[in-house]
Amino acid sequence: MSYQPAFAGPLMILAFLSDFGLKDPYVGIVKAVMLGINPALHIVDISHQVTSQDIMGGAFMLGSAFREFPPGTCFLAIVDPGVGSPRAGLLAVTKRYIFLAPDNGLLTMVFRYSEQVTCFSIKNSRYFRHPVSNTFHGRDIFAPVAAHLSLGAEPHSFGPLCPDPVRLPWPEPVIREQYIGGEVIYMDGFGSLILNIPADLIQQRGPVGKMFEVNIKGMELPLLSTYSDVAKGKPLALIGSSGFLEVAVNQGSAAEVLDAGVGEKVVVISKKITPQKQDG
Amino acid sequence: MSYQPAFAGPLMILAFLSDFGLKDPYVGIVKAVMLGINPALHIVDISHQVTSQDIMGGAFMLGSAFREFPPGTCFLAIVDPGVGSPRAGLLAVTKRYIFLAPDNGLLTMVFRYSEQVTCFSIKNSRYFRHPVSNTFHGRDIFAPVAAHLSLGAEPHSFGPLCPDPVRLPWPEPVIREQYIGGEVIYMDGFGSLILNIPADLIQQRGPVGKMFEVNIKGMELPLLSTYSDVAKGKPLALIGSSGFLEVAVNQGSAAEVLDAGVGEKVVVISKKITPQKQDG
Amino acid sequence: MSYQPAFAGPLMILAFLSDFGLKDPYVGIVKAVMLGINPALHIVDISHQVTSQDIMGGAFMLGSAFREFPPGTCFLAIVDPGVGSPRAGLLAVTKRYIFLAPDNGLLTMVFRYSEQVTCFSIKNSRYFRHPVSNTFHGRDIFAPVAAHLSLGAEPHSFGPLCPDPVRLPWPEPVIREQYIGGEVIYMDGFGSLILNIPADLIQQRGPVGKMFEVNIKGMELPLLSTYSDVAKGKPLALIGSSGFLEVAVNQGSAAEVLDAGVGEKVVVISKKITPQKQDG
Repeated sequence: MSYQPAFAGPLMILAFLSDFGLKDPYVGIVKAVMLGINPALHIVDISHQVTSQDIMGGAFMLGSAFREFPPGTCFLAIVDPGVGSPRAGLLAVTKRYIFLAPDNGLLTMVFRYSEQVTCFSIKNSRYFRHPVSNTFHGRDIFAPVAAHLSLGAEPHSFGPLCPDPVRLPWPEPVIREQYIGGEVIYMDGFGSLILNIPADLIQQRGPVGKMFEVNIKGMELPLLSTYSDVAKGKPLALIGSSGFLEVAVNQGSAAEVLDAGVGEKVVVISKKITPQKQDG
Repeated sequence: MSYQPAFAGPLMILAFLSDFGLKDPYVGIVKAVMLGINPALHIVDISHQVTSQDIMGGAFMLGSAFREFPPGTCFLAIVDPGVGSPRAGLLAVTKRYIFLAPDNGLLTMVFRYSEQVTCFSIKNSRYFRHPVSNTFHGRDIFAPVAAHLSLGAEPHSFGPLCPDPVRLPWPEPVIREQYIGGEVIYMDGFGSLILNIPADLIQQRGPVGKMFEVNIKGMELPLLSTYSDVAKGKPLALIGSSGFLEVAVNQGSAAEVLDAGVGEKVVVISKKITPQKQDG
Repeated sequence: MSYQPAFAGPLMILAFLSDFGLKDPYVGIVKAVMLGINPALHIVDISHQVTSQDIMGGAFMLGSAFREFPPGTCFLAIVDPGVGSPRAGLLAVTKRYIFLAPDNGLLTMVFRYSEQVTCFSIKNSRYFRHPVSNTFHGRDIFAPVAAHLSLGAEPHSFGPLCPDPVRLPWPEPVIREQYIGGEVIYMDGFGSLILNIPADLIQQRGPVGKMFEVNIKGMELPLLSTYSDVAKGKPLALIGSSGFLEVAVNQGSAAEVLDAGVGEKVVVISKKITPQKQDG
């Protein structure tokens, strides 16, 4: 086989992301099925409050979290508006990790950031919980497959290679000499607006500060180092912790202050800095 | 003793359901008390967002989740509007599991689905955290009892047999030759409406499809296999993952689209199917 | 060194409180960094729904929870409106526990209830995740420091002594012979209102009951033992489970019924009880 199998063992970390919410027992049920097969599995929640059926939001959240986990982690990601339709689930093996998800684009950011990705279609019903329902593949397919993986089952034993998994179109930033055009791709719980402009696009032009100006909703914001570089309640742009440019408000919500959300257009202008004349 | 003691051991899984919510530190406090007694206890959350003081909703959630957990699991379920009143807590032992809950009907669905249930009243204050408050028996009574159970204490050591635990009245479906009458018993976080009609009542009449018609709020819905059998935004009925009939909307909320909630009446009509004449 | 090092070991319990919320992947990311350093760390959530950037609310929640955890627990508490500003993080060692938090008053209640507190400034960047961002010290500083502590690193190895950590002003109750004046310091998820009046201030005057009357929003409430001492929907005062006086409504929300929240003034009147004449 050409793929690199990641570490597996009974104490494997299983990182779990879904849009199941925390009110219903669905998250607990998926964990119950996994623990019934591998009682020593170490389950860590990433989030279960992906906006219901928002594949792109889930893809971004998984993309901003997965590289922090130790090598060998198995990720179970379920945002599945098409559950019950005929497409099979996806098992993706990278140099460091294993991912289980519906084949609907939820792994788009993982594919962008990973090397040596090998994908399999999850088809071997020997590993499923029976009877398989039409509406809860998390419990009936993904949970038992994850648990058997953690006990050492080989990725290729779950089904055939999947040569062309679904990838969502990614809104690429527009790069020009005088500016970069982008848009909001995620709004976090503090109301900060995360853009599709990676930090390195900014950093290769120069340090944050006077050289840049960020335009959103007709406002010109400074590009600074941290929230407290502006007064409380004031907006700014900064390099966010996820490695993307971010629009935020010091001790407040940029989404509320700017009345903006996902899809809002943003232009970052690189200004020519004329060296200041110095006295004397 | 006539009951079958379930497995106990330091690595026992403790599945926890409550209406404590996730904002306050109450869930963490109950876990802290348990871990202070058994630091190796493996705690798994089912949900802590049962609607505040909704015993029936909690009973349904526990009922739809518990059978997925491995044998030997201990369930701690706390929805307790009557905390501080004189009735004792309940310890129920079944063939596969142990349950701890207030004696207020929260175990109603567990009793329906379990064999060989033996109940004890939790009265032995030797196991309690002192002083016992009037308002937080989760911390002062249930948590230490659960932890001592996980360390191997015998169920009968916590108090005397409780011969007649509280059971909530269960809205039984009305079964007639031409129809089944039921009602919504639970609304999940996706807005799907779960009915009191078990799957087998339908399946013994025939396969889902043209034979059935589901009436709710003056609308006639088809009974199909999965969400994507109707167009996006359209309602349908289907056999839900919890084993009950369910009214849902493909990629939407049935509760919103139909403006319906718990208690809404539903009629499932079994139609006589006249075999179609075939050409030739 | 004059401080008492708390227990450390690979199975140390790490109790985690923040205002990160549960929608975004931030909580999962902090856990991922800790587990990458110590895969056996046992992480327990206290709450991640502290009101965004509400240091006083977080301080109260931590204060009402920490003493329930077993000795040796390490607490990671992050509510950090000033993230990225120049002050260093705080590592506080008490007789029983270790605390990691921004030096902004979040440990105010811990300091009130603990003996032999020794504080260090977290400055040794050898333990940090690099590059250190300006906006996510939870991931880049606190998480790796917590994980290294759990593996046995000595508290003093993270930085110099911090002799004067920030403490928030605490609203002390006004104590007079005929009354105690206080205010609401926390509203829980059930809508109960917790006051700054410790139970012992009441108990040293006499038992709950006719001797006391609690005035809030122009209403006179009885001080009783438990919720069910009044009819459903009626307000009362009682000694709450956190050890403070509390205003609640039986099976309802005091915040809604009384239209009151944090900061609302309350007066507890101790009445002279004239012994009742007895017949005969």
